[in-house]
Amino acid sequence: MKKQSTSLRVKLPVFLLVIQVIIVTLYAAFVTYDEHTDARFQTNKTNPMDNAVYKDYPFFTDIQVMIFLGFGCLLAFFRLYGFGGMVFNFLTATFAIQWAILVQGFFQFNHDGKIHLGVINLINAEFACAVVLISFGAVLGKTSPLQLLVMALLEVPVFALTEWAVLKYLKINDAGGSILIHLFACYFGLGVTFVLYRPHLNEGHAKENTSYQSDILAVMGTLFLWVFWPSFNSALTLKGDDQHRAILHTFIGLSASTLTAFALSVMLNKNGKLTMADVQNVTLAGGVTVGASVDMMISPAAAYVLGMMGCTACMLGYKYLSPFLARRFRIQDQCGIHNLHGLTGLISCAAGICAILMASEDVYGPSLYEIFTHRAPIEGDPKLQELQMLIPGLQPGLGRTAKEQALFQVAAVFATIGVSAVGGVLTGFILKLPYFASPTDDFCFDDEPFFDVPPDYDAPLKLNNTITAEDSVA
Amino acid sequence: MKKQSTSLRVKLPVFLLVIQVIIVTLYAAFVTYDEHTDARFQTNKTNPMDNAVYKDYPFFTDIQVMIFLGFGCLLAFFRLYGFGGMVFNFLTATFAIQWAILVQGFFQFNHDGKIHLGVINLINAEFACAVVLISFGAVLGKTSPLQLLVMALLEVPVFALTEWAVLKYLKINDAGGSILIHLFACYFGLGVTFVLYRPHLNEGHAKENTSYQSDILAVMGTLFLWVFWPSFNSALTLKGDDQHRAILHTFIGLSASTLTAFALSVMLNKNGKLTMADVQNVTLAGGVTVGASVDMMISPAAAYVLGMMGCTACMLGYKYLSPFLARRFRIQDQCGIHNLHGLTGLISCAAGICAILMASEDVYGPSLYEIFTHRAPIEGDPKLQELQMLIPGLQPGLGRTAKEQALFQVAAVFATIGVSAVGGVLTGFILKLPYFASPTDDFCFDDEPFFDVPPDYDAPLKLNNTITAEDSVA
Amino acid sequence: MKKQSTSLRVKLPVFLLVIQVIIVTLYAAFVTYDEHTDARFQTNKTNPMDNAVYKDYPFFTDIQVMIFLGFGCLLAFFRLYGFGGMVFNFLTATFAIQWAILVQGFFQFNHDGKIHLGVINLINAEFACAVVLISFGAVLGKTSPLQLLVMALLEVPVFALTEWAVLKYLKINDAGGSILIHLFACYFGLGVTFVLYRPHLNEGHAKENTSYQSDILAVMGTLFLWVFWPSFNSALTLKGDDQHRAILHTFIGLSASTLTAFALSVMLNKNGKLTMADVQNVTLAGGVTVGASVDMMISPAAAYVLGMMGCTACMLGYKYLSPFLARRFRIQDQCGIHNLHGLTGLISCAAGICAILMASEDVYGPSLYEIFTHRAPIEGDPKLQELQMLIPGLQPGLGRTAKEQALFQVAAVFATIGVSAVGGVLTGFILKLPYFASPTDDFCFDDEPFFDVPPDYDAPLKLNNTITAEDSVA
Repeated sequence: MKKQSTSLRVKLPVFLLVIQVIIVTLYAAFVTYDEHTDARFQTNKTNPMDNAVYKDYPFFTDIQVMIFLGFGCLLAFFRLYGFGGMVFNFLTATFAIQWAILVQGFFQFNHDGKIHLGVINLINAEFACAVVLISFGAVLGKTSPLQLLVMALLEVPVFALTEWAVLKYLKINDAGGSILIHLFACYFGLGVTFVLYRPHLNEGHAKENTSYQSDILAVMGTLFLWVFWPSFNSALTLKGDDQHRAILHTFIGLSASTLTAFALSVMLNKNGKLTMADVQNVTLAGGVTVGASVDMMISPAAAYVLGMMGCTACMLGYKYLSPFLARRFRIQDQCGIHNLHGLTGLISCAAGICAILMASEDVYGPSLYEIFTHRAPIEGDPKLQELQMLIPGLQPGLGRTAKEQALFQVAAVFATIGVSAVGGVLTGFILKLPYFASPTDDFCFDDEPFFDVPPDYDAPLKLNNTITAEDSVA
Repeated sequence: MKKQSTSLRVKLPVFLLVIQVIIVTLYAAFVTYDEHTDARFQTNKTNPMDNAVYKDYPFFTDIQVMIFLGFGCLLAFFRLYGFGGMVFNFLTATFAIQWAILVQGFFQFNHDGKIHLGVINLINAEFACAVVLISFGAVLGKTSPLQLLVMALLEVPVFALTEWAVLKYLKINDAGGSILIHLFACYFGLGVTFVLYRPHLNEGHAKENTSYQSDILAVMGTLFLWVFWPSFNSALTLKGDDQHRAILHTFIGLSASTLTAFALSVMLNKNGKLTMADVQNVTLAGGVTVGASVDMMISPAAAYVLGMMGCTACMLGYKYLSPFLARRFRIQDQCGIHNLHGLTGLISCAAGICAILMASEDVYGPSLYEIFTHRAPIEGDPKLQELQMLIPGLQPGLGRTAKEQALFQVAAVFATIGVSAVGGVLTGFILKLPYFASPTDDFCFDDEPFFDVPPDYDAPLKLNNTITAEDSVA
Repeated sequence: MKKQSTSLRVKLPVFLLVIQVIIVTLYAAFVTYDEHTDARFQTNKTNPMDNAVYKDYPFFTDIQVMIFLGFGCLLAFFRLYGFGGMVFNFLTATFAIQWAILVQGFFQFNHDGKIHLGVINLINAEFACAVVLISFGAVLGKTSPLQLLVMALLEVPVFALTEWAVLKYLKINDAGGSILIHLFACYFGLGVTFVLYRPHLNEGHAKENTSYQSDILAVMGTLFLWVFWPSFNSALTLKGDDQHRAILHTFIGLSASTLTAFALSVMLNKNGKLTMADVQNVTLAGGVTVGASVDMMISPAAAYVLGMMGCTACMLGYKYLSPFLARRFRIQDQCGIHNLHGLTGLISCAAGICAILMASEDVYGPSLYEIFTHRAPIEGDPKLQELQMLIPGLQPGLGRTAKEQALFQVAAVFATIGVSAVGGVLTGFILKLPYFASPTDDFCFDDEPFFDVPPDYDAPLKLNNTITAEDSVA
């Protein structure tokens, strides 16, 4: 172990400094301000308070809290890996956002040969970052910080390319990111962990457990995610009633899944008690499940049902599917991302497709064609002119029917799963190279190889040993 | 104990799942979108950025942080009941909000046979939830999660009915909820704990104490509440200067009570040191005390004085009144809600009445009749027309004088205390039924009956015993 | 020790209550509402949603989280001084804000013999509070709460006077407060700690270290600061694109410094591992370094470079300069504020001066004269009229050239450092008076003298001793 951890001294700084030089060079060459951040674009006709920053920044800060405090605390649930969970999350997230600004900028915000930057790009980059952090959950405790950075380095471009291609060519509705964020992140992470399979860990690991304090910290992480999830699901919807509905549905979905999670946790626990891991994870399932249809007119009751369904699938996944995948398919999914993001993501996609099939002008009024932009009549269609009388700014669409839109959604689901799984597996092979200072099995779930730890870091363990030893003597 | 905790396995899931089926049925039958969330109501005349979500959502997220993180951490102050405090708060709050959406919807947001839903309903429901969580403070550590859910089930309708009746018939000013939230919650909670009296706990309990980490966690909870309290007190005021004043007064009141709390804590401590319980609770007294007059033109100095007075009452309550109530009146008020919400609430009501009596057009200008809507002249009064020249949208009122308004406030105080105390006592009798898995005295303030706890959860205790044992041997 | 801690019983309450009486008297005599909080100023021409509270309050709450939770958790990093770090931060901050409202009000918001109050004053006061808390970092663990309050009592007026004089007479650009906040706070704090020099502490102190939990708590503090720092740096900029750029640059600067901090931490650690103190502090350097030019058109790449430079200087400062200053110059800088605020502040000032020298109408368009108000042509200049055609509300300026403005910035840097260092030294002499209950060397970094601590507060220490003792026996 010594050899590996000392070797981090050279590798990690070299990687980070090289990457920073590359990033800053690309920033200097290609990144400039967008029309809301550039002083030259402000005239006596622009009202400062109409600047996009006031629409975007409140959602940005909420998502920041989720990324850095929510994920950070939640991933710190291991007894001896609290530094690792929280600090590697900090490192990986910071890098992923910077990298995503450039990569997404190249695909999506690129005109006149420049990437134009505003807070809206940061929000998009934080979504890419969320993808990386979800995938991180699959390999938590079994990877070095260098491996995590390399994973982010590879995952962000694959994600950005998929996102761009799906949005540009398949043109889907996915306000909460159920397809592009949750399914992508899940299957990418499973691909990685499949390759990084460690057979000994299936037999249990002495350090793979929680302490009283780490459990409480993880619940705080859950609560940060829970509280701000409506902002996550609504940050990129249309403004106005669409965003309002997205907030409402997310809150309702989360509430429903929370109650169901408590019910099932007690029911499935062998002592009829609450399991903290369920409180920390399964309660959040509803936030994912409402994602794909979150801005649609699905009705509050449907959001509630989606929350309950997502939670049930997630809970059963933790109980039965995860152990099965680990034993039979070599998929060691450390945080159970397949339950919290995969199964729930699939339910969400199905619900989104139903909502698309049922969407009609009766329910939405003419704004149907704003939410489902691709269903708007094509340029030249007389129906378009009629609609433009009602909604002056309406853009011509593709004249898709509900069924066509649904089929494109299905295509997007399969394409996303396919690309992400393959991308994850390939990334896994790269991460397996001996160069990246992966911890040995013994030092999994342990801060010691990567941090100067204070003397009390394993105090509870030592204490228990002491007490047990004394008990056995007595 | 074993028997009771295993019996939770059936009871809690059954309760939660039955409740969820009822809730979702009611949602499906009666809940729809309001004019700001329904796509059909948006026309080419509605500006998306004028949607109510942008006025309400920032306050909503602030209150969410208070409810889930603020209360959650603050209630986790017991050494062995950190899971209980934080997680039962999560469960109870989530349920109370859902339930309040329906019950308040029935009383207040009900037209055309439907409850119309937007973020504003969620804010109202979170206030109802705060009521339940405050009452929870009186019985913390002595109740099962099932008892807490039943308490919420009963308290929310009594609260919603009281709120509706007081606002509709007595028509009072109570922007910060001193009467309707704090007094109601306090006397309801005292009623419950009166019935759930446990004589043995008056002799002290081995687990009724804090640890170093739990004290720090509780301070974090306090700080979350402290930081966002201005949003709580101002969320439902009139927009503009009224909301601005509410924020200012709450901040000033809290600041004043914080300094006073530190002064009195050291002064009354037998070693001349700070008591953490005071830092955690008494510092917040000012937020309650300014409540009833928070949006009025009381002057910053008055807000400051209210903070100091509330804090002093609260501190003396903790020191002298609470032990007295426990010994003589069988009222075991675990978190001292009578000090932090009752005494301060009464001071706040008195201050509100003074502010109402002194309110005049000299100080408020014509907007007097916007803040005190019931003092606006009645329909047909020529004075009304004059005022409507100055404030075009002014609604006709009841032509109440300041004194009349003050009397109605007094009536509201007594009515609220009466209803809540009776409601609390009746609820207490129901909670006492053997069915609800109440922990035995030995297992009060203990996570073990309700959670799978990690092995180190009582490590500090064991450690002290070990060390003490060794010391005594040596 | 006993004698001193019991003597706090009289001193602290007396100080606090006397101060509160003074504050409330001054409030009553001199503080009133501003035009956005006073009901009388609202007419049928004022739109409530245009009230300044909606521009200021979101930034205010973000900064509140930084002050109370960010600083609070970060300063709680000592193993036995968690209460002290968090609670004294709470006390000192609350007092400093109240005091700053009055003192800054006297200098800056004073007309018609009254201080006019709105949320904007609170933001300004929180900046003054941040100054005090940064200085606090230099003497953390070595001062009684009374000393901290006296320090705030003295530092706030010196700061407010400097701020007022620099802004009124030197008229500088310093949106992020690099000069006025960070440099002032740093050199004031160093002045204080220079006088409070304790020779024994240079030999190391048994309690001057962290525990596993306290390190995690401090990282949470860092993350709160990191997440909301863009709000801090942008709260007082011009609205619109200026604020947008300030947010963007701060985020980029922090991101860059975070990656650099991880790289250097591993590189400079003797075991090639991460040092938690670096993760907690050095990652934040970029937020300071971008400060002075944060609202200017410096380009995203420059913000990135500033983050990297600031971080490097900060890290080298922690590694080499701080020990040197402690040994040779009697400057015991407990939290290394000279690295995180001094060195970075100086870099920031230099960068600001470069940005000022390079600022031209080519890059900024006519809004150059809005950002650099003092470069606007003087009253009567025909160029002013031309510009006013483009920007109707443009105010006449002083007609400064870029070079002149740069010279004024330089003057401000030296003036600020001079005043703050002298102020700090004088304050130090006052704090050294025996009256203020300073802890003895043995009780530094220890909660015990000031708090009723729970029995387990030094459990990890005892445990280690127990285990070590047993090991040595075995």
